[in-house]
Amino acid sequence: MKFSFKNDYSEGCHPHILQALLQCNYDQQAGYGEDIYSLKAKELIKEKMNNHDSEIYFVSGGTQANLIIISSILKPYQCVISASTGHILNNEAGAIEATGHKIVSIETEDGKLSPLDIIPILESHRNVPHQVMPKLVYISNSTELGTVYTTAELEELSIFCKENRLYLFMDGARIGHGIMSEASDLTLEKVAKFTDVFYLGGTKNGALIGEAIVINNLDLQEDFAFNIKQKGALLAKGRLLGIQFMELMKNDLYFDLAKHANQQAMKIKNALKEKDVIFLSDTYTNQIFPILKNMLIQKLAESFEFYIWKNINEEFSAIRLITSWNTSDQAVSDFIEIIKNEG
Amino acid sequence: MKFSFKNDYSEGCHPHILQALLQCNYDQQAGYGEDIYSLKAKELIKEKMNNHDSEIYFVSGGTQANLIIISSILKPYQCVISASTGHILNNEAGAIEATGHKIVSIETEDGKLSPLDIIPILESHRNVPHQVMPKLVYISNSTELGTVYTTAELEELSIFCKENRLYLFMDGARIGHGIMSEASDLTLEKVAKFTDVFYLGGTKNGALIGEAIVINNLDLQEDFAFNIKQKGALLAKGRLLGIQFMELMKNDLYFDLAKHANQQAMKIKNALKEKDVIFLSDTYTNQIFPILKNMLIQKLAESFEFYIWKNINEEFSAIRLITSWNTSDQAVSDFIEIIKNEG
Amino acid sequence: MKFSFKNDYSEGCHPHILQALLQCNYDQQAGYGEDIYSLKAKELIKEKMNNHDSEIYFVSGGTQANLIIISSILKPYQCVISASTGHILNNEAGAIEATGHKIVSIETEDGKLSPLDIIPILESHRNVPHQVMPKLVYISNSTELGTVYTTAELEELSIFCKENRLYLFMDGARIGHGIMSEASDLTLEKVAKFTDVFYLGGTKNGALIGEAIVINNLDLQEDFAFNIKQKGALLAKGRLLGIQFMELMKNDLYFDLAKHANQQAMKIKNALKEKDVIFLSDTYTNQIFPILKNMLIQKLAESFEFYIWKNINEEFSAIRLITSWNTSDQAVSDFIEIIKNEG
Amino acid sequence: MKFSFKNDYSEGCHPHILQALLQCNYDQQAGYGEDIYSLKAKELIKEKMNNHDSEIYFVSGGTQANLIIISSILKPYQCVISASTGHILNNEAGAIEATGHKIVSIETEDGKLSPLDIIPILESHRNVPHQVMPKLVYISNSTELGTVYTTAELEELSIFCKENRLYLFMDGARIGHGIMSEASDLTLEKVAKFTDVFYLGGTKNGALIGEAIVINNLDLQEDFAFNIKQKGALLAKGRLLGIQFMELMKNDLYFDLAKHANQQAMKIKNALKEKDVIFLSDTYTNQIFPILKNMLIQKLAESFEFYIWKNINEEFSAIRLITSWNTSDQAVSDFIEIIKNEG
Repeated sequence: MKFSFKNDYSEGCHPHILQALLQCNYDQQAGYGEDIYSLKAKELIKEKMNNHDSEIYFVSGGTQANLIIISSILKPYQCVISASTGHILNNEAGAIEATGHKIVSIETEDGKLSPLDIIPILESHRNVPHQVMPKLVYISNSTELGTVYTTAELEELSIFCKENRLYLFMDGARIGHGIMSEASDLTLEKVAKFTDVFYLGGTKNGALIGEAIVINNLDLQEDFAFNIKQKGALLAKGRLLGIQFMELMKNDLYFDLAKHANQQAMKIKNALKEKDVIFLSDTYTNQIFPILKNMLIQKLAESFEFYIWKNINEEFSAIRLITSWNTSDQAVSDFIEIIKNEG
Repeated sequence: MKFSFKNDYSEGCHPHILQALLQCNYDQQAGYGEDIYSLKAKELIKEKMNNHDSEIYFVSGGTQANLIIISSILKPYQCVISASTGHILNNEAGAIEATGHKIVSIETEDGKLSPLDIIPILESHRNVPHQVMPKLVYISNSTELGTVYTTAELEELSIFCKENRLYLFMDGARIGHGIMSEASDLTLEKVAKFTDVFYLGGTKNGALIGEAIVINNLDLQEDFAFNIKQKGALLAKGRLLGIQFMELMKNDLYFDLAKHANQQAMKIKNALKEKDVIFLSDTYTNQIFPILKNMLIQKLAESFEFYIWKNINEEFSAIRLITSWNTSDQAVSDFIEIIKNEG
Repeated sequence: MKFSFKNDYSEGCHPHILQALLQCNYDQQAGYGEDIYSLKAKELIKEKMNNHDSEIYFVSGGTQANLIIISSILKPYQCVISASTGHILNNEAGAIEATGHKIVSIETEDGKLSPLDIIPILESHRNVPHQVMPKLVYISNSTELGTVYTTAELEELSIFCKENRLYLFMDGARIGHGIMSEASDLTLEKVAKFTDVFYLGGTKNGALIGEAIVINNLDLQEDFAFNIKQKGALLAKGRLLGIQFMELMKNDLYFDLAKHANQQAMKIKNALKEKDVIFLSDTYTNQIFPILKNMLIQKLAESFEFYIWKNINEEFSAIRLITSWNTSDQAVSDFIEIIKNEG
Repeated sequence: MKFSFKNDYSEGCHPHILQALLQCNYDQQAGYGEDIYSLKAKELIKEKMNNHDSEIYFVSGGTQANLIIISSILKPYQCVISASTGHILNNEAGAIEATGHKIVSIETEDGKLSPLDIIPILESHRNVPHQVMPKLVYISNSTELGTVYTTAELEELSIFCKENRLYLFMDGARIGHGIMSEASDLTLEKVAKFTDVFYLGGTKNGALIGEAIVINNLDLQEDFAFNIKQKGALLAKGRLLGIQFMELMKNDLYFDLAKHANQQAMKIKNALKEKDVIFLSDTYTNQIFPILKNMLIQKLAESFEFYIWKNINEEFSAIRLITSWNTSDQAVSDFIEIIKNEG
């Protein structure tokens, strides 16, 4: 069996979670997220954010979180602004449009948005009422390209959004990796301060399923639970989500797992850099996109699974490697070994 | 801690499931339902149905299953026909209408639909194009009132639907209980034969989460996966659903669990009948609605949790008791003991 | 050619409108409702309402007005409350549900809603977040049964709605007939005072097309034009709507036309009452539902067109007669003549 | 009063239409498009297309036609392909997305689509079921840039669409101008042959309102009327639309009006070309985009209204001139006179 670097959701979950599921299994609890585990998990997240005014809801996955959040915030004629690499644009089968909202996209180098990216969109959408009204800025951290926001960048974007009456929403499917990146000084507290809403992704960071939606803007909190129910996202056994986030938030396990994933990727990145390999984008999270000779790729593919991301020329291709909370030192060193010998 | 008869999703899951999650935890598997457990689970369901032409998809919950199925089948101007007790009408926060479709409801005694119930709806919806077009009949088995369909009833309804170009969809959140009821001769094979689509509910029968959507009508199978993705229901770790249904379908565990739940309810029902208690509806599944003296209810409430369902008069109220795969003999006999002594 | 009492939109339009269209035809005007005729028409309506804070928009038809208004007001999880006879429930091909909103219906005798009708709906929709949230009360005046609201009834409903944080919306497809009914003391000023939004129907009262949406609640005015554009209701030649309402509002033509229609219906009604005919509902607008012997109906049908509304028994049926702004005295007296001779 | 070249819907309508409205005004007709004028108008269009299998429906405007057609054809997970200049993308306030469908856009030089433009979209949308499925190609003729399709171009696109199981839909808000352009050999018969659905725009070619939707693909005809009703587009007085298209289709008035508009634009274009003026795009319909010195623009603006379309540099800007069925020779010669004297 080849070890897979294809994604960060190949395995089950962190063992602490399974232990907790076993331990709590026969407790009778209220349904629909009113169980004690969900309540505890919310408390732990609020403590970590140092913000007890936010509201937290658990849902099963990222596309679900994105469509519920966006459709709950926007009026029918309002649209989302996203980088053209945004997950909502390309990888969610039209989930956002299916709720009635256009996504206006912006080409970027690194998958990140800054005020300068957004200004032209605002200026080209002023023909009232013939055009949609831009109202919500969607960013991801880490992005789909593996890049990250710094505190200063997020703060600048936040100020710009407030000035322009735009909401700021951070897709945090890989927020752990974004925050724990060596290239970022961001904290969960800062994310909570500078966004109107964001979510903490569990699925790609050690949970079986689950994303924790955090609504910081008080205006957006009212009646939010209805949206979760209406979109089919309210689990009868909400305990399943609560137990997982309770375990992940205990003793910063969530952040340690993300840091581990990042570190494993950086080990491979550094080994490749020593061989003067170049990368599609300069990432410091658990995704790397090295450009390798096709022959080396073939060799690596004998022992590992990964995606060939982009053909560069006849001789070279970029591959995508994703490490996870569970990527072992052994797998990493085996991979590096091949590079050293063959690269 | 009082034992709860409030619902059948109070506990975690059947221990076989937890064992399997533990055992498979570190296997790397393909995402989005392409894992080997999901494939195995689908095979087991098809064998049980004795039908290998159906397509099967796993999703997380009942409202999600309902809204995906209905919105994938209907054209924008087509509507659903449902008993007025239907879960989609009252308990899903408008999830079906949110996908654009009206539900036309029919008052019934027992929560079940027959051709005679549906004919007036068809007759009163012929003012083309000023009215919605009835196209899909939604039934539940067991129903929200705990009643069940027999094979003859389902076959009659199926024939009627075909004659009238209506699709027949069975909400199977409690299909195990419906099939295993002593009042029904239905089998999974018959359900597959007589419905266009149905689902096997896991959440209320021993799983952590999960419903298995089964599409029998070949015309409705095309491209169905897009709908699951677009509604945010496609889990990256589809293995979580696959493992659960694999375990539930092994050696008919799913049906044994439902049968156990039914039997525990019937024990209580019989004990109450011996005391000449009457019931809101005559059920043979895991839901019973006895009408009791308020004083007895108060006494029972000291040791058990349950819902008071309906005030009958100053002296009497109906309560709802739901048993589950995990309702112990002890809980049942303790409950009966109070009835015997106090009733 | 038989004279038709089938509806009030069988002919073209009042001649003043055609004259104005001819007169203005070669004026070049701004598009999308910014023409001088639309501005003038809005001023005339505001004067009649004695309220200059309302916002007014013209659209083409009643279903269009209903779906734009309702979808612009409600959040995704909120629903409409309507009498079971409501036009939006039965005669709009699911237009409201197609925008994502459930309509909860109430059986009534006369097609009208009072607080006592609505209270049970509020009480049975408190299982947050599992049920839709009632938020908007839809009434029609005159109703689909030809009945009307008095000022006292509308005021009472208005107070109740405000107390319960419900919006009140009056479908005014036949508001002229409602206001000018001898059974009502309502005025346009009172309608504007007691509703959050309503519309003045042109199509059924002498216009070619057109309904004037009037938004009285300031909170509901923001950005409304986007909704009109997004639903395809913003006419490039908005002048067509403006010219019509300008003419209809001059010298109270709109109300005179409705009064004429009402009076012609009342003449027939009174003639029938003299023959001791009974009616399905006791109406004082331009719709009457007399119950006649089938033989008389047959005789009438030789000279007139009308709908047979309901079979009463073997000998009797109810018919529906609708008079219009253009129903001549001759047609009415010919009809009465037959009744007198044959009845 | 300055003469306006701002658009082709500034005036009322062609006098033949007003005459017909006057003449038919007191005829009692069936509602909802069942009147004799609508039937006659459909016959005339079918004769002109030399195709009696198509189905025809009249609606009020272009955005309305676009949203009804697209939402009736596509399944929830299917998307539209459009040139980035497409009216549906930029000028309809998100009307298409509001019906649940993504529009995937393609940058083009001239606002037209060819198979080579579409192939990359198909290739980049193959990650089933994570991406929307391209299913309908939206084109305009004439386009938003004033350019036109030839028969060969349309046929090539048609063949490509059939091969790739894509529907082809032509927005014909200015189809008269497209067909009558000196740069095109297209006929209405060819349009009907090579598209699945298109519409004939009345609003921009001499009608008060109205677009005639023509459904050529038999598979797309079923139950189409429901969609019109549900979107609020079914006029009670459908006669208003029928009378207009009856008049426009008599003796090819529709095409003569478009030809006139084109010719007036070409006169100005030729006069400008003699002065060596260059144009933003090389158009042969009723829209021209000359690049003029700002001083000349200022001079022209003293006597005419038009849009300044794009600033080119400090000295030059492009303006947009649109001529119509009603643009007089006088207006054209006055405009040319200024150019000759000042240019």
